[in-house]
Order: sequence, then C-alpha cells, then structure tokens
Amino acid sequence: MVAASSAKDRLKRRLFGNPLPRDQEEARTVPSFQALPILSSDALSSVAYATDAALGVLILAGSGALSFSLPITITIVALIAIVVFSYRQTITAYPQGGGAYVVGRANLGTLASLVAAASLLIDYVLTAAVSLMAGTQALSSLWPWLLNWQVLIALVLLVLVGWANLRGVREAGRLFALPTYAFVVMVMVLAVAGLQNLIFSHGFSPDPPPLVKAVEPLGLFLILRAFSSGCSAMTGIEAIANGVQLFRSPSAQRARNTLLVMGLLLASMFLAVSGLGFMYGVAPNPDVTVMAQLGMRVFGPNTPLLWVLQITTLLILMLAANTAFADFPRLSALLARDNFLPRQMAWVGDRLVFQNGIKLLLVATAGIILICQGNTTVAVNLYAVGVFLAFTLSQAGMVVHWCRERGVGWLTHALMNGIGSTSTCLVLVVIVISKFAEGAWSVVIAIPLLVLLLARTRMRYRQVYAELDLKPGESSLVQVHQRSEPIGNISIVWIPAWNRPTIDALRYAATVSDRVIGVWVRPEDGDPELIRREWQHSVGDDPNLELQILESPFSSLINPFADFVDAIEERDPAQTLTIVMPMAIPRYRADSLLLNQRAINMRAALDQRQNRVFTMVRYYLPA
Amino acid sequence: MVAASSAKDRLKRRLFGNPLPRDQEEARTVPSFQALPILSSDALSSVAYATDAALGVLILAGSGALSFSLPITITIVALIAIVVFSYRQTITAYPQGGGAYVVGRANLGTLASLVAAASLLIDYVLTAAVSLMAGTQALSSLWPWLLNWQVLIALVLLVLVGWANLRGVREAGRLFALPTYAFVVMVMVLAVAGLQNLIFSHGFSPDPPPLVKAVEPLGLFLILRAFSSGCSAMTGIEAIANGVQLFRSPSAQRARNTLLVMGLLLASMFLAVSGLGFMYGVAPNPDVTVMAQLGMRVFGPNTPLLWVLQITTLLILMLAANTAFADFPRLSALLARDNFLPRQMAWVGDRLVFQNGIKLLLVATAGIILICQGNTTVAVNLYAVGVFLAFTLSQAGMVVHWCRERGVGWLTHALMNGIGSTSTCLVLVVIVISKFAEGAWSVVIAIPLLVLLLARTRMRYRQVYAELDLKPGESSLVQVHQRSEPIGNISIVWIPAWNRPTIDALRYAATVSDRVIGVWVRPEDGDPELIRREWQHSVGDDPNLELQILESPFSSLINPFADFVDAIEERDPAQTLTIVMPMAIPRYRADSLLLNQRAINMRAALDQRQNRVFTMVRYYLPA
Repeated sequence: MVAASSAKDRLKRRLFGNPLPRDQEEARTVPSFQALPILSSDALSSVAYATDAALGVLILAGSGALSFSLPITITIVALIAIVVFSYRQTITAYPQGGGAYVVGRANLGTLASLVAAASLLIDYVLTAAVSLMAGTQALSSLWPWLLNWQVLIALVLLVLVGWANLRGVREAGRLFALPTYAFVVMVMVLAVAGLQNLIFSHGFSPDPPPLVKAVEPLGLFLILRAFSSGCSAMTGIEAIANGVQLFRSPSAQRARNTLLVMGLLLASMFLAVSGLGFMYGVAPNPDVTVMAQLGMRVFGPNTPLLWVLQITTLLILMLAANTAFADFPRLSALLARDNFLPRQMAWVGDRLVFQNGIKLLLVATAGIILICQGNTTVAVNLYAVGVFLAFTLSQAGMVVHWCRERGVGWLTHALMNGIGSTSTCLVLVVIVISKFAEGAWSVVIAIPLLVLLLARTRMRYRQVYAELDLKPGESSLVQVHQRSEPIGNISIVWIPAWNRPTIDALRYAATVSDRVIGVWVRPEDGDPELIRREWQHSVGDDPNLELQILESPFSSLINPFADFVDAIEERDPAQTLTIVMPMAIPRYRADSLLLNQRAINMRAALDQRQNRVFTMVRYYLPA
Repeated sequence: MVAASSAKDRLKRRLFGNPLPRDQEEARTVPSFQALPILSSDALSSVAYATDAALGVLILAGSGALSFSLPITITIVALIAIVVFSYRQTITAYPQGGGAYVVGRANLGTLASLVAAASLLIDYVLTAAVSLMAGTQALSSLWPWLLNWQVLIALVLLVLVGWANLRGVREAGRLFALPTYAFVVMVMVLAVAGLQNLIFSHGFSPDPPPLVKAVEPLGLFLILRAFSSGCSAMTGIEAIANGVQLFRSPSAQRARNTLLVMGLLLASMFLAVSGLGFMYGVAPNPDVTVMAQLGMRVFGPNTPLLWVLQITTLLILMLAANTAFADFPRLSALLARDNFLPRQMAWVGDRLVFQNGIKLLLVATAGIILICQGNTTVAVNLYAVGVFLAFTLSQAGMVVHWCRERGVGWLTHALMNGIGSTSTCLVLVVIVISKFAEGAWSVVIAIPLLVLLLARTRMRYRQVYAELDLKPGESSLVQVHQRSEPIGNISIVWIPAWNRPTIDALRYAATVSDRVIGVWVRPEDGDPELIRREWQHSVGDDPNLELQILESPFSSLINPFADFVDAIEERDPAQTLTIVMPMAIPRYRADSLLLNQRAINMRAALDQRQNRVFTMVRYYLPA
C-alpha cells in the first residue's frame, strides 16, 4: 500500500503549508526599528482602550467627574516610567531574555515562578481577547451597523490570527513594522491636528462634556476603580525585556534603548489621547471609542484620515493579539519541558510552531470573547490583576538577584527594582480591592487554581515516570518462545454480527494463537440459532475454535463479555490472553458515527477492567 | 482479576441508580386524570409565555396597539378548537399513538415523514429551551436580582431535568399531577379574583396601559407578527394523540375526552390571561412577565398567593421541558431503528432510557439557551414554524388516511382533517413570512438540512451494510494454521522510550509472532547509542528480534514509522503484519493527558494508512 497522502492530509497542507524540515528553526535577529514593533504592539495598542476604560468608570459619577481622568493619566504615566526603568535593569541582568517565569524561578523559587507563570498565562488569554474585542470596536465605531455582529467579528479575527500562527508567522519583521508605525504616526497626527484646532477655534478652553447625571457618588473608591481600569494601558511593557535575543549585538544595549523609546511613545500617546479627550469634552460611549470620537471631531466624520486612524488601530490590535499567540505557546512549552504541563504542549508541529499551545489559546480566547459578549470593560477588569502580579514578582526577583550578585552598583540597582516592585505591588492591591466585585475575584481564584494544577501535574509526572522506569537490576529479559512448543496464547474474539470483519478477525486470531473463543452476546432481538449455523458453516468443528453465546440480563452487552474475559483470566493468570475486536473502518470519516460504536464502548469498559492485550483487526470498506 | 466496580462505576451508580434488568420495561396505563398532566404540561404551560410574546410585538406600535391582543387571542382560541377536533380524529384512527412521523410515514411517504420528524426534533429542542427560559423568567419576575443570572439558572434547571431523565423518570403520574393541576387552579383563581376586583373597583372599564410611544407603524404585517408569536400557545396539543397507549381501556375513547378537556382548559386559561392583561392595562415587560404583573395587581406584590402562582408556573414549565426529554429520545430511537439516525440513538442504557438521545437534547438545548441568552422572544420566533409544519403534515396524512380507508363517515372525517390541515398550513405561511427576518429563516434552513442528513444517513447505512455482509457463495472459511509450520506473523513494536511498557510489548510480540522488529524514531534530543545498549542488555542477539532506528527529517515522529510499516507491507502483502503499541494506562483518568499522546496520534495516523492489525499491550500503573 503506498503512503498516498489522504484528503485530510492534503487539506491540512493547503491550509497550513508543507511540513518544514527541523533545521529551519534558527536564531534570528533584526534591527532595533523592527524589533520595536514586533515586541511592543501589545503595549502601544493599549492606548486604544485604556482611556475608554478609565472614563467608563468616572462617568458613573456624572460628567463632572470626567476631569479626574487627567490626574489618573499622569499617575499612570509616572508608573510607566518606573516600570520602564525597572525592566531596563532586567535586560542588563538577563540578556538571554528575562520573563517573569524565568526571573522568578531563578531568584524566588518554584512557587513564585509558578504564580508568575499562571498570571502570565491568564494575561495572554485576556490580551488576545481584549485586543480583538477592542479592534472590533474600532471598526464598529466607524460603521455602527456592525455593532450587532461584534462577537462574530471578534471570533473571525481570532480565527485569522490563530490560523496565521498555526502556519507559522516567519516573516514577522516587516509585517509588524507598518501597522505599528502607522498607528503611532496617526495618533501623533491626531494630537497635533487636535491641538491646532483647539488653539485656533477654542483658545484652549476645554469643551464641557455632554451633561450626564451621576448614578454613583464621586468618592475615592470610584477614582481608584477608574485608575485600575486605566492601568490596562501598562500591559505588555515587559515584552522587550523578554525578547532581548531578538536584537543585534550589543543586544542588551539596543534593547535598553528600544525600551526607553517605547516607554516615551506609550506615555506621550496615552497623554495625548486622554488630554485631547478632556479638552474636547469627550464622554465615554460603549458604541464609539474615545479615539474614534476624537477622530470625528478633529478630522471630521467620514473622512479618509478617520478611516486610516481606525483601521491602523484595528491592525495594531490584531498584532497585539498575535503577540499573545507567540508568548502563550512559548511559555506553555517552557512549562511543559519542566513537566508542569502535559509534554505535548512542548511538541513542535510540522510548521515548527507549538501547535497545541496555539490551539489551547484559541479555545480559551474564544471562551472569553463569548463570555464578555464582545464588551471589553468586563475583560479589562480582569486584565490588570495578572499584569501587575507579574510585574511585582519579576521586580522582586530582580531585587533578590542584585542582592545575591553584589556586583558594581548593586545597591542602586536593587533600590530601583525595589521601587518598581513596591509601587506595582501597591497598584496590585488597589486593583484587587477596587475591582474585586467587578470580576477581579475570578482571577484571584483562577491564579491559585492554575498554580495548583501546574504543581500537581509535575507531581503526577514524577510518580508516573518512577513507575514506568526499569529499576536497576530488574529482570528485563525478553523471552522468545520456542517454535516447537505451543505459543501459549488464547484469543477471545468479540462477534458483533456475522459479517466480513468478523470473519477477518477470526482468521487473524487463528493465526496468532493456540485457542480461539468467539463470543456473541445475545441482544434483545437476537437469534442464537442463526449464529450457530453461520459458525458451523464457516468454522466447522475445529477443536481449537469454539463459539460461546452469552445472555445479558441487563441492557448492556458489554458487561457479560467483560465478565467472561475476567473469568478466563482468573482461571489461568499466567496465560497470555488477547482480546480481538473486528472493526469496520469506513471510507468517510463521517461514517464512523455509524459503525463500531459497541466496539468503542467495549474498549472503554475493558480499559476499566485492566485487560492487558487488545487487538483491533480492521476491515477497510472499499472506496 | 476481579471485576471490581471502579470509582467511575460507583459514581455513575450513585448519580443515575443501579442498572435495571431488561424485563422491567413494561407497558403501563394510568387513569385519565393522571394522563392529562403527563401529556399536557407542554400545551398548558405555554399560557405562561404566549401572551407576553404577542404583546411584545404589539407594543412596537405603541401602547394603543395592545388592544389588538384580544382579536388575536380569539383567533388563536378558534385555531385551538380546530386542531383539537382534528387530533380527536387521529386518535380514532391511530389508537397505538399517531405522532406526525408515524402518520406521515404511513400516508404521505418517506419524505413527508422525514420533514415531520425534522420539524419535531427541532421543536423538542425549542420546547425544552423556551420552557426553561420562561421558567427562569417566572422566578426573576418575583426576585429581580435574579435577572443577571438568567442564563445560569436556565442551565441549572436544564441539568436537573436531564439528570432526572438519565436516571429514568418512572414514577411520573403523581409527580406530574400536582404541579399541573396546581397551575390550572392558580390561573383560575387569578382569573376569578381579577374579575371580582374589576367589578368592584373598576366597574369593568379597562385600565389604560402606561403610555409607550410607537417605534413602528401599526399595520397588518405587525399584527400578523404578533399573531405568529401568540401561536406559541399551541405547542404540545398533539401530545395526547401521540400517547394514546397511556390511557386505560377503552383508551381511544378516554384519550378523545381528555383531549377535549385539555383544549377547554388551554383555551380558557389563554383567554383569561390575555383578557385580564387587557383589562388591567398590562404592558409587556421583558423583566416581569404578564402573568406576574397580573398576579401583583390582583394578589398584591409579595403575597404568598403571588409566590405560589409563580412557583407553580416554574414547575409546570419544568414539566414541559421534561416532556421534550421524553419525546425527543423516543423519536430519535424510532428514526435510528429505521436507520435514519446512527443506531446508538436506539440503544437503551442501564436505566432503560435512550441515554444518547437525552444527552444530545441536553447539549442542543444548552446551545439554544446560550445563543438566546435566556431571552425567550428569539426562541419563540423559531418555535411556531416547526409546530405548524408538523400539524399540517399530520392532518394532511389523516386526510389521505380517510380517503384510503373509506370507512363509515369517511367524508366527514376527511373534511374535518382537511379544514385542520388547511388552516394550520395557512398559519404556517403567515408565520414563515412574518417571522422570516426575525429568526424563522434559521428553521426554514435547518429543516431541509436535517431531512437531508436523515436521508443520507440511511443511504450510507445501506451502502456500508452491503459492503460488510457476506455475499452468498463467498468463501468464508476460517483457516487454522498448522502447529508445525511458522505461524506467519511479523510484529512491529513501536518503542517510545525504554521502560516497562516497552519491555512488556516486546515480550508479547515475541509470543505471538515469528519475527519482531522494534522501531525507535529518534527525537531531536535522542541518543541512539543509549537505546542500542538497552536493547542489547534486554534482548540480546536473537535473530528473530531486530532493532530498527529511524531518523526523522521533520518534526513528526509518526511519519517515519508509518512509512517503515508501509514499506514492509509492500514487500510481502500476503504476510500478516501486527503493529504492537505499548500503552501505559494510568490509574487516574486525569493522568491520561500526560501519557500515550504519541501513541494516540500514531493510531490516528495509521488509521489513515489502512494498516490492518493494531495491538495495544497495556501496562497498568500500580494503584
């Protein structure tokens, strides 16, 4: 039989490309201006939703409260500065890439590293979901008739990103550069044009936002909630520190500079959007994003510039989702290599990507999009917890690192990371408390559960491997039977009906064993005489082949068979016993629902009974 | 090894009860007053949502349009009368039970019967979903804080009903009687108390509803849409005609009378709710049902009578969902016996229920509830199409039946069923047209697709069975090998790693075959020397056992192995070839994600390659 590629194989190649040879996986570096977009689309794109998130909380206290967005933005910008400087130090210390999991494992021990890993895994899922939902909102802000299809659009975008990653996104550099820089430029253009408009027509006096009545009193707690929502602007800052290997030599130096540039871009864009929002009196609107509202006022509705703004926003948000699709599988593979996740998460597929991690992320992200029904606010509430937990742990790990190393200027370094860790920890506490009732509880529960799962998986692996491995000195000799003596094997053949597969199975069993017992369990409407006649006709009176007809008092046909096998096994435990099942393999996969269902159930039942050898004799239906 | 019941078995018994012996399945009859609730909860409970559905459309034309609910209600009551009299005739003709599928198959041919079957299957899913969502609304009308949890509550109720049915609801009679009659009594009490209030305090002048502005113009089309929504009151009328065998002798006579009583109850309850709604000026409210609004005005808010009204509503709606759980699996089993669905839909489980049908309905209903997000209006739009299609076909079948039989008074009978069929067909057309854009399109697409699926399944069964069956005269002799000659079997053993399961598999292979080839495919980080040393140590230099080490140019380890097997098979196609796989079976089911993943992939790949004999040698990890 030739190894003809099946229809399924061909479809797979058409969709995902031909298998790539192993040696095509190589280290790769790119110039800094390409590394910036590859590593920062997540961070920069958060400008598209962070202002909305903060304003969405403030508006609850009425339109007057919207002015609090300014101090909140400034505080977050200060935080961005602290975290950027903290991570510049991480780059110096871990030029091979210092993700929170790696830094935590090296400096804080297994538990802390698992907590960091769990929060990162959750965050990658939320990054993908929030980015895709925000991208959808960028579109529906332009074309309101899309509002009813948000969930569907987000899912379609998700499938697109997932598919690209299953193919393997190799040509990343240029692909990423264009949308990212286009987005940065468009936000700058928006800022400059907006300011110019203000100067010439308004004389710098802010527009009042449309009057909205308060539904909650304005208090410190509400402001902290708004701040927590705005902190979603800070996701993804760590990416450059994780990806130092991508830079050309001297990579650490280049990465540090790039991180600084990224921080400046992020801070100024966030300031621009929030500031303009305040000056133009923009009120948050779940149907039209703040950025789209600004674009409409500054560029005018239905102008090409507005379209470009919104579409580059969509594109950079898709790149942000794509980042999650690179990071999640990579982290899961790291965890799988350490046996914290099933090993198949570390398998590299035909296209040299971690396809199982990608698939898992696809499913999880789709789940979040469906649960949130395309609404980013819910997801943003969950978002910041994991981000800041990872920040805190990674910076704390750095403090331990400096204190251990005691190199030149270690105290300054430790102090700087200490400030980073302390402030992000403080923010973490604020976020957990202020957002707890609005969904953060679920992350607070999910992280320890995930940590438990990771730890238990490794424990189980250790136990299972210990049981599988040969102990030194254990007898491991493979004995070969002598051709002269009976080979000592009984086959029990399950007879579901008298047809070709059954005959095939009986023939095979007769070939490999001394004694064959064919077993037929009578279904409610079965006629034993018929089977006896068929057996007589095909098998005859060979003493080594024997027909056994079993009655079933209950509706299950499987238990009588399994009991019969158990009884034979008990009579002579030393005997090798092979259970032979005829299986008709249909030509079309859809047909498999029609066939072999009893056999599949039987296999499951015998798995439970600890029967050892199970042989399927397959009869292929002609094409 | 003793057939000890596993932990999973024990849990299964705890949840679903012990297996029941086959002979416990018996025909059973109950008195008419018990048969009525068993067969009519679906029909009677629709009073709880039909008025809401009609008013919900009328309100679009402003509060003034609500008065059209009266003529709509009266038309529907007339339709109820027509359908009731039509089905009384079906009972006479089919005292063994005359569902639309049975009547259609006997009188209109396969296609019509499949159309009827498809619409019934879809309707049962919608019945379960609508009833559970309406039951949830009955609760949340009492306690508005439940509004945010509607989807979850509906799903919990669904699981409850599904679980009860997987256990087998044997003791149905009394269980059903109480909530059904309680519901009927409560609606009557509501009607009488409501009328009394009106007479004494209002003097029969209707309250005006709160002023709501029109968002659509009042036109014939809108009224037809409201009528179509109200027609959801007519679901389930056919149930008594399907269940004639449940009645005591003379069963047909009793069933006819019970159907009449049911029709009277349904019509008067529907009139009462719609009429009172009009008199009290009730406007539809998605958060508070019409019945709850009436209860609040008549009994007062937070009164025990109101609670009883709402809770009996919930209970009868759960019974209605339960009816779907009895009918859907029964119809699928009928279809499976005719090979229109996979045969496993006709399997009777340990508890003597069609467990596969129940599970399928569980999943489908959960899907509808999730898609509709707990909102009945969407589902009601889909609902009536299938109901009226089944009505029309079943009555048309009866017309054919009478014309064929030509018994006493056949012309009158045929005329009566003809009127029934024509009027329900007319309503069907109205529903499809007026509701097409609001969701009915999906049913209009789904029914032909389902019919196609049913027809294709039978076609595939016929082809597959023809290929499996032995042709007369075909050589079917089972040959038994001679003990003196080599048994003619090569085993190829897949070696994933050198451990106990592998040794076991090699030992087994040596027992059953003349020649054993152990195959190890080198993973990226594998050391061939190590495997060679282990092999040498355990197997030695037996000429019948041979180690083969394969390199893999791509990341897949499976293709080299499958290619190797193909090559050996091609060299000597007559040779029996057995592929032996070691499988480590973990003690805990959760562990199975950790083990054997390569082997499972391998099985799938070899299925594609048409390799014939596949043996799993299982190594059970010690407990």
